[in-house]
Amino acid sequence: MAVYTDVADEELAAFIELYDVGRLLSFKGIAEGVENSNFLVHTEKANFILTLYEKRVNKDDLPFFLNLMQHLAASGLSCPTPVVMKSGATLGELAGRPAAMVTFLEGMWVKRPKPLHCAGLGAGLAALHVAGSDFTMTRQNALSVSGWRPLLDQCAGRADEVKPGLQATIQTALSKLEADWPKDLPSGVIHADLFPDNVFFLGEELSGLIDFYFACTDSFAYDIAICLNAWCFEADHSFNVTKARALLDAYQKVRPLTDAETTALPLLARGASMRFLLSRLYDWLNVPPGALVTPKDPMEYLKKLQFHEDAKTVAAYGLDL
Amino acid sequence: MAVYTDVADEELAAFIELYDVGRLLSFKGIAEGVENSNFLVHTEKANFILTLYEKRVNKDDLPFFLNLMQHLAASGLSCPTPVVMKSGATLGELAGRPAAMVTFLEGMWVKRPKPLHCAGLGAGLAALHVAGSDFTMTRQNALSVSGWRPLLDQCAGRADEVKPGLQATIQTALSKLEADWPKDLPSGVIHADLFPDNVFFLGEELSGLIDFYFACTDSFAYDIAICLNAWCFEADHSFNVTKARALLDAYQKVRPLTDAETTALPLLARGASMRFLLSRLYDWLNVPPGALVTPKDPMEYLKKLQFHEDAKTVAAYGLDL
Repeated sequence: MAVYTDVADEELAAFIELYDVGRLLSFKGIAEGVENSNFLVHTEKANFILTLYEKRVNKDDLPFFLNLMQHLAASGLSCPTPVVMKSGATLGELAGRPAAMVTFLEGMWVKRPKPLHCAGLGAGLAALHVAGSDFTMTRQNALSVSGWRPLLDQCAGRADEVKPGLQATIQTALSKLEADWPKDLPSGVIHADLFPDNVFFLGEELSGLIDFYFACTDSFAYDIAICLNAWCFEADHSFNVTKARALLDAYQKVRPLTDAETTALPLLARGASMRFLLSRLYDWLNVPPGALVTPKDPMEYLKKLQFHEDAKTVAAYGLDL
Repeated sequence: MAVYTDVADEELAAFIELYDVGRLLSFKGIAEGVENSNFLVHTEKANFILTLYEKRVNKDDLPFFLNLMQHLAASGLSCPTPVVMKSGATLGELAGRPAAMVTFLEGMWVKRPKPLHCAGLGAGLAALHVAGSDFTMTRQNALSVSGWRPLLDQCAGRADEVKPGLQATIQTALSKLEADWPKDLPSGVIHADLFPDNVFFLGEELSGLIDFYFACTDSFAYDIAICLNAWCFEADHSFNVTKARALLDAYQKVRPLTDAETTALPLLARGASMRFLLSRLYDWLNVPPGALVTPKDPMEYLKKLQFHEDAKTVAAYGLDL
């Protein structure tokens, strides 16, 4: 749940006035998202989502995110589109925070995805990769392989507080990942955080992708690996190969994987596990006082990492070799 | 912020199917309200608010609240109206909680009310009292004078943990209130919790009243006293008599006060202060582990109580004697 910032009436009215959206009719904080404050804004013209960017988002990255959403929407991808102010800008300021308003996307995220949802996701992810291929801005992935050791260092050797031996397990796995990480896979814009709560469906149909605030330039197959982790494990940590096959098959109908991508998938999936294991570990060890959000369990991603260490080839994910 | 309960996809879809509202298009938890879980539901037909009643609401009271909203709306008051299911019922069950869906009310609550908002509130409050006058159900006010001593007892003598001497101050004030509390004032349905966040405006016009989950049968003037406390004090605890006069004058244009009500107002305002002082004191001393809501400061209401103890007549509130 996330509304970190209160907005004063007059400030809000003045902000809405910057847009050509008609009179403000309602304004409600949304209990979703963990990084920013989100509000549902209803005006005479339409519904919008107003986001106040809180301190975890680097202000310098905002033009990348907002331009990317504009580019993807213009390319036909269903995603929130930044609303352009009368001034021509898409980024403003409200309550002392950078702020932007985007179009409202119908649909709901699926709490327990079925294989058909994984297929929808696969097709949507490939469409995103294709739509982003002619986007000219770039943003380095701070949470890829070169960022993991600094993140581990920030945990200050405290991993064993979560589970005895975890520090050594991570060290070993991380060294292997650093040694083996592939460098020349097909790359472009990736979402990098396409968990189920960022993918909307209407019934069985994907209705759009949201929350591009981790988007960056990295290898497409790494984005797939993140999704395999986020969508294809069951609550008991078992891997559902039917879901993985549905995801990968649907992806490849839009954008076939190269042999190098296919071969790299188990390694990338280990990397994707390491990325969320480390960020969750850091959050777990550093819960701020008065936090409104319960940190997510890092151990979930240790179990995923171990699954992928046992998976020697992509056959484990339902792909034919 | 309040979304206490997660709702499973299939359960939600089945619940929406009970209504004749078309296909579900979106569903978002709202970061508002402290007692219940609230969701904004958008269907092909309209926007609605779906409320799951959490444990602080007595299930047996729900027919009173829902029938009252139906009655008030039918009488022309702008307030959320319970949506009737295909079965004819307005109360259902979702995620193991009693649940109801009400119409969506446009408008926003005002964080810093001006005198004109207080006037709008006064007129709206009087309209509520008039519209409720022929509502046949009754509900005892558990948080009126007879409920305060039990509430103080539940604080187990711990008031001095908040401020040394508070226990004795409350005891003295409470004994006087119990001795002097008026019994024969004009009564009927009161809102009993009409704080600014429960009153919506569109621009300068009141657009409706929400959150009837403290509504009960009690004296109308006590409802006014609650509003004087909630709307007419400034952040520095000074009393804004211009706002009070605006509230009272607008109220009386719709429903003139009797002499007995006018005379009782300072006493009722002390009582209204005691009611929120005690409930906030209890909440302050009993924050549940993992609470998502910061308890409100009880001392704010001690200061209000002391203001009203000094106000011997309604002249202090801007009313002519």
